[in-house]
Amino acid sequence: MPTVEITRRAEFCAAHRLHNPEFSDEENHKLYGPCNNPNGHGHNYEIEVTVRGEVPVPTGMVMNLNDLCWILEEKILPQFDHKHLNHDVPSLKGIIPTAENIAVVLWNQIEPEIERFEGCRLHKIRLSESRNNFVEYEGSSS
Amino acid sequence: MPTVEITRRAEFCAAHRLHNPEFSDEENHKLYGPCNNPNGHGHNYEIEVTVRGEVPVPTGMVMNLNDLCWILEEKILPQFDHKHLNHDVPSLKGIIPTAENIAVVLWNQIEPEIERFEGCRLHKIRLSESRNNFVEYEGSSS
Amino acid sequence: MPTVEITRRAEFCAAHRLHNPEFSDEENHKLYGPCNNPNGHGHNYEIEVTVRGEVPVPTGMVMNLNDLCWILEEKILPQFDHKHLNHDVPSLKGIIPTAENIAVVLWNQIEPEIERFEGCRLHKIRLSESRNNFVEYEGSSS
Amino acid sequence: MPTVEITRRAEFCAAHRLHNPEFSDEENHKLYGPCNNPNGHGHNYEIEVTVRGEVPVPTGMVMNLNDLCWILEEKILPQFDHKHLNHDVPSLKGIIPTAENIAVVLWNQIEPEIERFEGCRLHKIRLSESRNNFVEYEGSSS
Amino acid sequence: MPTVEITRRAEFCAAHRLHNPEFSDEENHKLYGPCNNPNGHGHNYEIEVTVRGEVPVPTGMVMNLNDLCWILEEKILPQFDHKHLNHDVPSLKGIIPTAENIAVVLWNQIEPEIERFEGCRLHKIRLSESRNNFVEYEGSSS
Amino acid sequence: MPTVEITRRAEFCAAHRLHNPEFSDEENHKLYGPCNNPNGHGHNYEIEVTVRGEVPVPTGMVMNLNDLCWILEEKILPQFDHKHLNHDVPSLKGIIPTAENIAVVLWNQIEPEIERFEGCRLHKIRLSESRNNFVEYEGSSS
Repeated sequence: MPTVEITRRAEFCAAHRLHNPEFSDEENHKLYGPCNNPNGHGHNYEIEVTVRGEVPVPTGMVMNLNDLCWILEEKILPQFDHKHLNHDVPSLKGIIPTAENIAVVLWNQIEPEIERFEGCRLHKIRLSESRNNFVEYEGSSS
Repeated sequence: MPTVEITRRAEFCAAHRLHNPEFSDEENHKLYGPCNNPNGHGHNYEIEVTVRGEVPVPTGMVMNLNDLCWILEEKILPQFDHKHLNHDVPSLKGIIPTAENIAVVLWNQIEPEIERFEGCRLHKIRLSESRNNFVEYEGSSS
Repeated sequence: MPTVEITRRAEFCAAHRLHNPEFSDEENHKLYGPCNNPNGHGHNYEIEVTVRGEVPVPTGMVMNLNDLCWILEEKILPQFDHKHLNHDVPSLKGIIPTAENIAVVLWNQIEPEIERFEGCRLHKIRLSESRNNFVEYEGSSS
Repeated sequence: MPTVEITRRAEFCAAHRLHNPEFSDEENHKLYGPCNNPNGHGHNYEIEVTVRGEVPVPTGMVMNLNDLCWILEEKILPQFDHKHLNHDVPSLKGIIPTAENIAVVLWNQIEPEIERFEGCRLHKIRLSESRNNFVEYEGSSS
Repeated sequence: MPTVEITRRAEFCAAHRLHNPEFSDEENHKLYGPCNNPNGHGHNYEIEVTVRGEVPVPTGMVMNLNDLCWILEEKILPQFDHKHLNHDVPSLKGIIPTAENIAVVLWNQIEPEIERFEGCRLHKIRLSESRNNFVEYEGSSS
Repeated sequence: MPTVEITRRAEFCAAHRLHNPEFSDEENHKLYGPCNNPNGHGHNYEIEVTVRGEVPVPTGMVMNLNDLCWILEEKILPQFDHKHLNHDVPSLKGIIPTAENIAVVLWNQIEPEIERFEGCRLHKIRLSESRNNFVEYEGSSS
C-alpha cells in the first residue's frame, strides 16, 4: 500500500492583536509594530491540514475527505471564525495569537481527531495570515 | 490618443464589526449574523483602484503608477491598515463598515487625489473582503 | 444613496460533453475537438454573481450576502455540483453545455431570486471553466 | 440569441525598458524610476482577450475557443514571448513599451483577426504586468 | 554541486466517478457521497512534478525544463486530459480514480521517464483536484 | 518550545538570458531554446524564504517578520529588482542565471543574515519564475 499525504484547505476570518502584557507599551510597540494596535486588526486566515497514511485498496483514500472537512468546518474552525482571537477563543486564553502559536493550538486540537482514524496521522499544518506570510508546524516530535 | 484604464492593486489588514446601534441586539444578530460578533473579526482587504485617461505619446502612461502607488500606500491606506475599522478610522466614524460603505469612503478620499492629475479621472474601485466577496463602486454619477 | 455592485463567488465541479446530435460525428469532432470526447471530461467551474443596487443607510448593504450565498449554495448550485451536465441537469436538457449556454441558464434561474429583494437587480454572471477561459453575461437587454 | 462575452487568458515573458530618447537621462530617470534601468527588467505578462457576440444555437459558442487560442498562441504572442520588447518586436518599434502602449498594439493586431469571425467583435484587452498592475483597453471608439 | 529541486506545473481537465463495484450502491453512496454520482463529475486537475538533482556548472539546470515539459504535455497528460478517468484511461483500469490513486499511477508513469536523465530522480508529485483538496506522493520508498 | 517554520514571500521583476559563452551559438540555442534570445526576456520572480526555529513564549515568534521583511526588501532584493540579471548584478557575475543558480546565490546571501538571529536558521528558498516553474533549495548540507 503506498503512503500518501492528503491536504484539506479551509479559511477563517478573525481579528487579533499581538501584545504581551508583561512588556511595557513601548516594548510591545517596538516588538510588534502595527500588529500591536490596541483595538486589533484582522486577516483572512488560510489553514492547510495534511494527513499522512497508507491508501487501502478498497477505498483508494488515505482518509475520507468528507470526514476531514467535517472536523475542520464543524468542530475546529467555528471556534476561530468571525472571532477576535484575543477575546473570544478559550483555547488561546493567555497565548499571544501569533501565527506560530495559533498553528500549535490548531495542531493540538486537530491531532486527536485524526488519530481516531486508523492508519492516519496528522503530518503538517500550514497557517497563512496573508499571501506573504505563513507558518508550518509538524508537531513536537519533528 | 487612445483612452486606457490603469489599475493598481493594494492590500490592507483590518478588523471590523457590523452593527447598527439603532437596532436591538437581536435585530443586529439576525441582520449581520457572525459579522455582528461584539469584539469584531477581520480580513485581508484587497483594493483595486482604476483610473481612466488618454495616453500621451511622450510618456506612454495614463498616469505615473508611482504616483498612484504613493497615493494609496502613503496617503490613503495607512488610515485603514492594521486598524479596527469601527474604532480607529475617523473617516468611518458613524458609518457601518460594510464593504459597500468602505468602498464609498475610499472613493471619496481617492477621487480628489486623482483629479490633480490632468486628463485622469477615477473610474472604479473594487474592494474585496475575501476571495468570495467583493464590491465595486464607480462614483455617484454612474 | 450610492449605487454599488456586490459579487459573490462560488464553485461547482461537473462533467460535460460538447456534442450537437444534429451534426455528424466528424463534424462534432471538428467543431469541439477534445471537448467532444464521448464519455465527457470535467471542470471546477467558478461562478461570480454580481448584484447591483443602492446602499440603504440603515444596513449599509446592497443585499445581505448571506441571502445571496444561500440562493447560490442551497437553491441553484446543488443542481449542477458533482453532476454530469449532459445527463443529470433538467434545466440543461437539450442544450449544449458550453460555458455560454450554462451562463445563460444560470442567469435565468438566479434573476427571479434576486428580483424578490427590493432595489436589487442581477447585473452580471461570470462563469469560468478554467483559469484560461471564462464567459460573462449581463442578460438579454444588455 | 443572447449576447455573451468570452475571454481567453494567456501569458508571455518579456524584458522591457521605459525610456524616451527625446528626454534627458535625468528626466527619464525621474519619470520612469527603476523601470528606466538601461539593460531593462522583465515581467510575466498576462493578457486577457474578450470577444463579444451572439450565441448561435447550433454551436452554443460565441466563437470557437480553439480559434481564439490559435490566434493568440500561434499568431500574436510569439512576437512578444521570450523577447526584449525594446529591441526584438517590430510592431513596437519607436513606441515606449508601457503596459498602455503594448495593450493598444495588441488590440490593433488582434482586432482584424477577430473580425474575420462573423458576428464577433473584439471587446476588451486586459494586460497585466504583475499582480498589482494592469491596464484595460476597449478600442478607439470606447 | 548544489542539489536543487525543480518543479513543473501542468493542468488537465477530466471527469471521474468514485465507485467500488464490490460494494453495494448504498455503501458506495455512504462512502463517496456526491462523488459517487453515476454519470460522474469533473475537475481541473493540477499536477506539480518535482525532480531532484545536482546542478552541473555548464548548464546551471537540474534538468532541462523543456524536456520535463515535453514528458508531461506530450507523453503523460494526453492520456488523462479531456477524458473520463473511469472509462477512457487504460492505466486506471480497475482502479478507483481517487486523487491518491491517480497520483500513484502518474508517479509510476513519470518515474521511468525521469530516470533516463543522468543525475535526476523524481522527488514528489502533487495532484490537486481543487483549490481545497490535494494529495502528495513521494514514491514507495518514502 | 515547539519548532515552527515561518515563510516570507516577496517579488522582484528582472530580465535574464540563458547563455553559456563556452558553447557555440548553435549549442546554446539547442540547450536553452527561446531563453537564449540575445537581448533577454523577463519574469516576475517570486521568492519564498523559510526560517526554522523554536518559538519563545515571551514573543510567540520564531523571528520577527519585520526583520525578515527588512532583510529581503532592503538588503537582498534591491540588487535583483528591476535589473537585467546578466549585466547588473555583481553576485551573479559569471553565473548562468537559471532559477537553480539564482536560488543558490540568494541562499548564500540570506543565510548569514538569518544566522545573526539566535535560534533561527534558514531552512528553504523557493524561487518561482512563473506559475508553472519553480525551484527549491535547502542549502548544501541537505
